[in-house]
Amino acid sequence: MTTAALWTDAQVEADPRVKAVFDDIRAVRKSDFVNNFWRALANQPAVLERTWSSLKDVMIAPGALDPLTRELIYIAVSTANGCSYCIHSHTAAARAKGMTEAQHGDLLSVIAMASQTNALVTALQVPVDPAFIVE
Amino acid sequence: MTTAALWTDAQVEADPRVKAVFDDIRAVRKSDFVNNFWRALANQPAVLERTWSSLKDVMIAPGALDPLTRELIYIAVSTANGCSYCIHSHTAAARAKGMTEAQHGDLLSVIAMASQTNALVTALQVPVDPAFIVE
Amino acid sequence: MTTAALWTDAQVEADPRVKAVFDDIRAVRKSDFVNNFWRALANQPAVLERTWSSLKDVMIAPGALDPLTRELIYIAVSTANGCSYCIHSHTAAARAKGMTEAQHGDLLSVIAMASQTNALVTALQVPVDPAFIVE
Amino acid sequence: MTTAALWTDAQVEADPRVKAVFDDIRAVRKSDFVNNFWRALANQPAVLERTWSSLKDVMIAPGALDPLTRELIYIAVSTANGCSYCIHSHTAAARAKGMTEAQHGDLLSVIAMASQTNALVTALQVPVDPAFIVE
Amino acid sequence: MTTAALWTDAQVEADPRVKAVFDDIRAVRKSDFVNNFWRALANQPAVLERTWSSLKDVMIAPGALDPLTRELIYIAVSTANGCSYCIHSHTAAARAKGMTEAQHGDLLSVIAMASQTNALVTALQVPVDPAFIVE
Amino acid sequence: MTTAALWTDAQVEADPRVKAVFDDIRAVRKSDFVNNFWRALANQPAVLERTWSSLKDVMIAPGALDPLTRELIYIAVSTANGCSYCIHSHTAAARAKGMTEAQHGDLLSVIAMASQTNALVTALQVPVDPAFIVE
Repeated sequence: MTTAALWTDAQVEADPRVKAVFDDIRAVRKSDFVNNFWRALANQPAVLERTWSSLKDVMIAPGALDPLTRELIYIAVSTANGCSYCIHSHTAAARAKGMTEAQHGDLLSVIAMASQTNALVTALQVPVDPAFIVE
Repeated sequence: MTTAALWTDAQVEADPRVKAVFDDIRAVRKSDFVNNFWRALANQPAVLERTWSSLKDVMIAPGALDPLTRELIYIAVSTANGCSYCIHSHTAAARAKGMTEAQHGDLLSVIAMASQTNALVTALQVPVDPAFIVE
Repeated sequence: MTTAALWTDAQVEADPRVKAVFDDIRAVRKSDFVNNFWRALANQPAVLERTWSSLKDVMIAPGALDPLTRELIYIAVSTANGCSYCIHSHTAAARAKGMTEAQHGDLLSVIAMASQTNALVTALQVPVDPAFIVE
Repeated sequence: MTTAALWTDAQVEADPRVKAVFDDIRAVRKSDFVNNFWRALANQPAVLERTWSSLKDVMIAPGALDPLTRELIYIAVSTANGCSYCIHSHTAAARAKGMTEAQHGDLLSVIAMASQTNALVTALQVPVDPAFIVE
Repeated sequence: MTTAALWTDAQVEADPRVKAVFDDIRAVRKSDFVNNFWRALANQPAVLERTWSSLKDVMIAPGALDPLTRELIYIAVSTANGCSYCIHSHTAAARAKGMTEAQHGDLLSVIAMASQTNALVTALQVPVDPAFIVE
Repeated sequence: MTTAALWTDAQVEADPRVKAVFDDIRAVRKSDFVNNFWRALANQPAVLERTWSSLKDVMIAPGALDPLTRELIYIAVSTANGCSYCIHSHTAAARAKGMTEAQHGDLLSVIAMASQTNALVTALQVPVDPAFIVE
């Protein structure tokens, strides 16, 4: 199911603005495969450009966190937000970047732990300790 | 604000079941400081025991992910769940475990990136690519 | 999938209380088509009546916001809440009320923008500026 | 409360990269007032630049939806995400752009309506009608 | 903090439409105290009337679930939605209706349990067993 | 769809640690049927053991709330969190524990009511009344 048509390669080829983004995705990822997220975003070229540009900066460019750690954080957020597509695609990405079963187990454990303490703290409305506040 | 009284040290001392957990928290963390979360949970000794026992296993025991990475994942979940207390306490914990400003910046960037792509995927209801499905 | 049976037209015809609501839905919308939401709610006549009555007031009666703007707001909430059915049905409704592709693009952009700044503000726990508080 | 220091004007002045963004915020908004969100983001210049750049494109540049409608959608998302700061700042922004009390009432009504039907649909797990699916 | 002024009793007395709702709240609850939620909603008389009317039906009128159970469910939803005000007001309401400390402990335990299994199921994207689907 | 393989009975039999949990699930529930949640968790034996152990304590052991009430609270949390699998499995569990259609209707009504007032309170940022705060 979807609320917008997924662009085929033929449609992409016929639209220079969309084609430029798809070409860059393929070049940066060194793969011909372009997943459905970009094919749905192709309906909105400005959103497509802005999203891919940010994604390159945030997830692919060198940074202070290694690429696998960034994927684990991405999965954690996507799980809390209940985004099925995102969990599928980024769990696959994490595995492609070397996530082991033991690391997946730890990721699941931390997500479950945080989810339950988040709920307890919220139900109890615990006030923030002064020690935790940045001046 | 809170929906349950926060236990003082005197109250903790007078209740052997709660005191045993607080003693263990202090021993494991090598610090006298016990934050408000545990003082609120003290009203429910069974929940207190279960939560501390899980937290030791998940966040403190050696695992496949290093302690700082686990804190970053914890912050990511707590942010998506909007748990103010949890964000404060685990950002402080991450800093205590060595999180640099540049790493905090990357964490914020990934959380923001995931939040916006989660929303786009959800609004577009993008179908999962077969390539992402585990058989 | 569903957790309650969807009522067929034959079942609806046989229950005067449910039939009255379905008749009104068809009359107000000038269409024979009644979507699955109402067929699932038919199991609970009181909830069915209350929900349809509110929906007529809020989404269909004349108001200070035009009907398309109300649909856009509905989609935004449904996206943030991750309600797949609601996103599908109200995106269809928005298109039926004239939403253009460019407007859909702007809607997606604002939803994505708000989602990421919501996450940044929450992770940073930014205090509300006094200028924003109503006395 | 906050998890990162809020930059003062003096700190901003001393950092050319942050100063450039603050100067642009003041120029675009035609106001000296820079709210706390940007003062917290100043700790992370790359996030600050990327966020302000996107915000200008999405919320301020001419588009297919008028500026007030974009604010209403922003408030709707922020409410569903429970972002207190964002609700305060964008409700103030909507009023500054002319939102009337009657429009605020309609906004609240639609947010409440969507929230309750989102919950009902989710609890009932209503399957999407084929009529709502884009081919 | 608030995004709309809270109405004083003097303001309520001067507006017959709002006064009628406040009078009914006081009569039904047999108490002069009217909490801030209604004082904020007073800015929007139509929303005020609709909300109070539904609340009376759902939370106060006799039903298939006893009033305390309804409060526990309300707290559970409000916790998952992170609504601080709602958690405070309905925890107070549950105590007024006889919730014991042991029952509060069970409520917290179930909320924490559900929150963690929700997260695990979502991260693992577990498919629904056919046995759970209603035909 | 899933992000981890579902273990078959043959795989379970071959792994003593996982088999011990599955044997206990079958013994406690007095049924051979083990649902997909546990088959997905089997990939992570430590998470499997910890989750089943907590679930037995919280949902099955005698407590201050009866088993059906605990299921209703579980459904409420799962609905607010949008966990489709959890809603299906716990609605089935609630029916198995005697939930009537009228009780289901009340559950839906309270969930819908809380969802809409949560949203209204959040959009209005209503301050907590002092009367609701525990000293």
